[in-house]
Amino acid sequence: MTISFGLLGAGRIGKTHATAILGIPGTKLSAVYDPIDAAADHIVQMSGARRASVEEILADKSIDAVLICTPTDMHADQIELAAKAGKAIFCEKPVDLSADRVRACLKTVDATKAKLVIGFNRRFDINFAAARARIDAGDIGSVELVQITSRDPGPPPVDYIKRSGGLFLDMMIHDFDMARFLLGHDEIIGVTATGSVLVDPAIGAAGDVDTATATLRTKSGKIAVITNSRRATYGYDQRIEVHGSKGAVSAANVHNNTVTLANKEGYHDAPLLDFFMERYAAAYRTELQSFVKAITTGSEITPTGLDGLKALELADAAVKSMQSKTEITVSI
Amino acid sequence: MTISFGLLGAGRIGKTHATAILGIPGTKLSAVYDPIDAAADHIVQMSGARRASVEEILADKSIDAVLICTPTDMHADQIELAAKAGKAIFCEKPVDLSADRVRACLKTVDATKAKLVIGFNRRFDINFAAARARIDAGDIGSVELVQITSRDPGPPPVDYIKRSGGLFLDMMIHDFDMARFLLGHDEIIGVTATGSVLVDPAIGAAGDVDTATATLRTKSGKIAVITNSRRATYGYDQRIEVHGSKGAVSAANVHNNTVTLANKEGYHDAPLLDFFMERYAAAYRTELQSFVKAITTGSEITPTGLDGLKALELADAAVKSMQSKTEITVSI
Amino acid sequence: MTISFGLLGAGRIGKTHATAILGIPGTKLSAVYDPIDAAADHIVQMSGARRASVEEILADKSIDAVLICTPTDMHADQIELAAKAGKAIFCEKPVDLSADRVRACLKTVDATKAKLVIGFNRRFDINFAAARARIDAGDIGSVELVQITSRDPGPPPVDYIKRSGGLFLDMMIHDFDMARFLLGHDEIIGVTATGSVLVDPAIGAAGDVDTATATLRTKSGKIAVITNSRRATYGYDQRIEVHGSKGAVSAANVHNNTVTLANKEGYHDAPLLDFFMERYAAAYRTELQSFVKAITTGSEITPTGLDGLKALELADAAVKSMQSKTEITVSI
Amino acid sequence: MTISFGLLGAGRIGKTHATAILGIPGTKLSAVYDPIDAAADHIVQMSGARRASVEEILADKSIDAVLICTPTDMHADQIELAAKAGKAIFCEKPVDLSADRVRACLKTVDATKAKLVIGFNRRFDINFAAARARIDAGDIGSVELVQITSRDPGPPPVDYIKRSGGLFLDMMIHDFDMARFLLGHDEIIGVTATGSVLVDPAIGAAGDVDTATATLRTKSGKIAVITNSRRATYGYDQRIEVHGSKGAVSAANVHNNTVTLANKEGYHDAPLLDFFMERYAAAYRTELQSFVKAITTGSEITPTGLDGLKALELADAAVKSMQSKTEITVSI
Repeated sequence: MTISFGLLGAGRIGKTHATAILGIPGTKLSAVYDPIDAAADHIVQMSGARRASVEEILADKSIDAVLICTPTDMHADQIELAAKAGKAIFCEKPVDLSADRVRACLKTVDATKAKLVIGFNRRFDINFAAARARIDAGDIGSVELVQITSRDPGPPPVDYIKRSGGLFLDMMIHDFDMARFLLGHDEIIGVTATGSVLVDPAIGAAGDVDTATATLRTKSGKIAVITNSRRATYGYDQRIEVHGSKGAVSAANVHNNTVTLANKEGYHDAPLLDFFMERYAAAYRTELQSFVKAITTGSEITPTGLDGLKALELADAAVKSMQSKTEITVSI
Repeated sequence: MTISFGLLGAGRIGKTHATAILGIPGTKLSAVYDPIDAAADHIVQMSGARRASVEEILADKSIDAVLICTPTDMHADQIELAAKAGKAIFCEKPVDLSADRVRACLKTVDATKAKLVIGFNRRFDINFAAARARIDAGDIGSVELVQITSRDPGPPPVDYIKRSGGLFLDMMIHDFDMARFLLGHDEIIGVTATGSVLVDPAIGAAGDVDTATATLRTKSGKIAVITNSRRATYGYDQRIEVHGSKGAVSAANVHNNTVTLANKEGYHDAPLLDFFMERYAAAYRTELQSFVKAITTGSEITPTGLDGLKALELADAAVKSMQSKTEITVSI
Repeated sequence: MTISFGLLGAGRIGKTHATAILGIPGTKLSAVYDPIDAAADHIVQMSGARRASVEEILADKSIDAVLICTPTDMHADQIELAAKAGKAIFCEKPVDLSADRVRACLKTVDATKAKLVIGFNRRFDINFAAARARIDAGDIGSVELVQITSRDPGPPPVDYIKRSGGLFLDMMIHDFDMARFLLGHDEIIGVTATGSVLVDPAIGAAGDVDTATATLRTKSGKIAVITNSRRATYGYDQRIEVHGSKGAVSAANVHNNTVTLANKEGYHDAPLLDFFMERYAAAYRTELQSFVKAITTGSEITPTGLDGLKALELADAAVKSMQSKTEITVSI
Repeated sequence: MTISFGLLGAGRIGKTHATAILGIPGTKLSAVYDPIDAAADHIVQMSGARRASVEEILADKSIDAVLICTPTDMHADQIELAAKAGKAIFCEKPVDLSADRVRACLKTVDATKAKLVIGFNRRFDINFAAARARIDAGDIGSVELVQITSRDPGPPPVDYIKRSGGLFLDMMIHDFDMARFLLGHDEIIGVTATGSVLVDPAIGAAGDVDTATATLRTKSGKIAVITNSRRATYGYDQRIEVHGSKGAVSAANVHNNTVTLANKEGYHDAPLLDFFMERYAAAYRTELQSFVKAITTGSEITPTGLDGLKALELADAAVKSMQSKTEITVSI
């Protein structure tokens, strides 16, 4: 059996997923949709897929699954259409910037029993997955304190920021999902956040912050702390640490190489991989492999639409907390 | 010129300082006060100091400086008496558990122009001091985000906790001072904190928490995040990291040794030094050297009584924030 | 222009190179030779190449280059045939176990002006290449002392060892090439080596050693030290270090992930990548890209047939030194 | 019982030992000999010891032990005199530059049953001792391959080099002892060495080398490789690594502090401690504590005079090997 994919959206992330599909045995990319000729043609050329409209792709019974990589404001509509068309769905995060819209969308997904996976790729990073495996194995005992450090090499264009939903919905949403991934089944009940404009005043002028932290509290008292910056001169800084009753587990950064220069000024190591396409290259492949496996074997879908919703709710709560300077209660 | 010291309190920390004095050229320990015979006698024997009452020590014109290492509730009174007696004063933290009492005490100190140093020993740790030197040298540009991780190997006895003032005043107070040390001259205006009882229910029964985090916000928007746990199975975990516009500086932990074992399970390094007497052994000596230098050369007193007060105010704010689940404003 | 490849030998390494070719733009795999049906068919299926005899491949004017991945004793003959057929040649190391045979073969290559690259893949490892780049940039000044540590996870089957030429020709030959790569243009004039049977007596019974070291001395007095073991419980141990007048550069190992577990026994990191297919996966791709570039742009061929010969001569000298317990002189 | 010490030689290392004695409970420094007034007076002032001649010290029945820190050419004579006078003896390495003279000296020591310890301080370094403890615990199984890297920050004055006996007897002798320490009870039977003048031509003009390596082979085939350089721009480079059947153990260098700066050029750590007085400060104290313990409790004397002799024989063999370009056999 070969799983046939349709790709909706052939931008940077769409191209990444298309490339990953080519490398997964038992899959093929059959069709690609993108309004921009150059983007669609590039995929056609590299994969042999045909170019098609969203409607054609959804109507094609030979296509088993869609990869939704369009702009965020199209995600929810396309998920609903794909669900009704009986496709398995892989959708980039976030499902929508509005939690209400996400809830409505997930109702449709539930009603159609469609398989929906949200692209929280970091869960599939070999390092973070290995950290989680340590936790699952009981190596640190009971989880108590999660620390997540996430810094981009540099800020995106202000135009992007304006339609991104802001740092908490655009950037920290990954860390909210990571916090839930590391905290296990203990749901978060309180969110406190603060943010500042320290990197670029233009970000502040656009109504956003560029440096932020959030503290999450679970029902049983576990605590997670997230810090974000839109700029790190030394590369893409992505670290997690989980402290528990029997020990602590951490996943360190990935450097460009393992070379050290020693001289009279000291010891010098390489900067970090520059950004997510490099750091998470393997994770993008692994998450699609996991999706393909879920389709073919019926194995667990992860992360689910509910995971997408939960992360969004935490992001919303963080924004409110930053504004009100109080802890915001989150419904479980 | 030899600086002559009187030691008030010959417990563990008093003994540490007495030992340090013996190793500093140009100093001598002349007298020791402690109500417990064994404690005082031990100091007498190791140093040749005579045993004396507080009053005798303060009245002895040949004694230049006192080291106040008595229980916390005696600190403020003894500072005032020593200041009036014209002594230079080194006092263990905190000056008092009540910020009002500290303010009153500092007025007396100011009035007498006494030299008063507070024992925030971590400022003198070679690693933290080197990190601060990097910041002062402009190596990371403008400070934006400070992260402080501080975990004790294990909780103190519950009896100690009951009279300690609680985690924020007893343990995190060091981290509040470290945050101020690393943030530079940008004073903190907002404190948000949360805490949980995850290590030992008896700590909760005593009205305290054992796992906590605080987020500090400065006037210009810099952010500092502190996390504390009363237990770390792998040793005394003391790390700082400061992120700035041009880079980041961090100070890592100190392991028992530099040995690594590699075997089929992986690579294995030694645990951390077990606790503060080992980790900060050199820092205790350096802070006394700094005090002696301030006495003999008139060099800057650091950390000052005001530093002690500021850390206490932050701790008080953290307690209030944890209780109210809101950010607490701190006066500059 | 598309470079068309013929693959001679479709075993493990042949398959690795075939896969790499698929991922290099501007190339295609046109034909594959292997006497074993399953091996050849696998390549045919994954690449669309046709199956053919060596003679057919060499006679096919549309094929630009061959990848020689057959058993060692066929290499020299096939290089000569391919050179005469006007193909660019990529040949796995070693060219032959006999230096005389290699010299004869290289004469043919020279006479035909064929482009010949030897598969010393480690030169293309991102870490070793970055170390070499540091040296080329003058960062360590003049090279003085090279240290190469190379340990396999476990010994190959004794049957393999019997026809391998022994540890120095089979395993350390990579390190001899690496030593030359790191020493620069200063040729080696003296080789001293010793070896022991410590891992498996069966290796000794087969006339080989499993633990060995060699010391190389260059004309100007630079020194290189290589240590090898056929077994390392913690993975594939591949490190280099170069000490120079201004500093030292080293390339560390690659672990399975960046996760550290801290518990009361200490800090625990992952083992190393298990073996060369994982550790050098990217290097295999990069060396083929370099070969393709040399074909298409006329850029420098590296490593050359002469590099292959030099490494073999050093291996021969090491064997003689181990037997005679004296330094063996190597002609430049 | 208080152990009373006499110090012979109050230079740099003598002063180090005198300071260490002051910090060891149950000991006192009673007398000091040095022909140079300033050196002797310094010790008198810091310790309260009286100044005396060698004869007076040896004749003083109240003195239990002597620390021989005089120039090397006085060591053997003073050991013999002290042994005959019934003193316990701590002697700096080497006992003498002539192995024959050492053998004669050790005969006297044996005849008098004097306790003699040789100052191979590195055995007491916390890191190397912990590595050895791992080996003794069986953590790496059977030892197979020892690698010792030893580089000084910079060369000593050429005048020193001229009377030092040369790199192998002056510098590598420590590494020969370390190799024996790590190899356990398997004695070395073959030594191969080479050396070059790469750091300073003046060292070559003085008849010595400044960069060298030695390979040691034991009776059972274990191998040890030592590399030395008289210069390392990044500090005092002292590392060991031992590879065995079940794993490997290594002891890394000691940096000035644990601070890392990350910026766009990468990650930057502090240089190493500059030289042996800093790196081995604690080891000097520990070796004297071990000596004091051996005197007071009759615990094992280590390292013994025989250890001193063995290291010297290896150094002599290395010199011969470098000259003859052959392996030199060493009697067990």
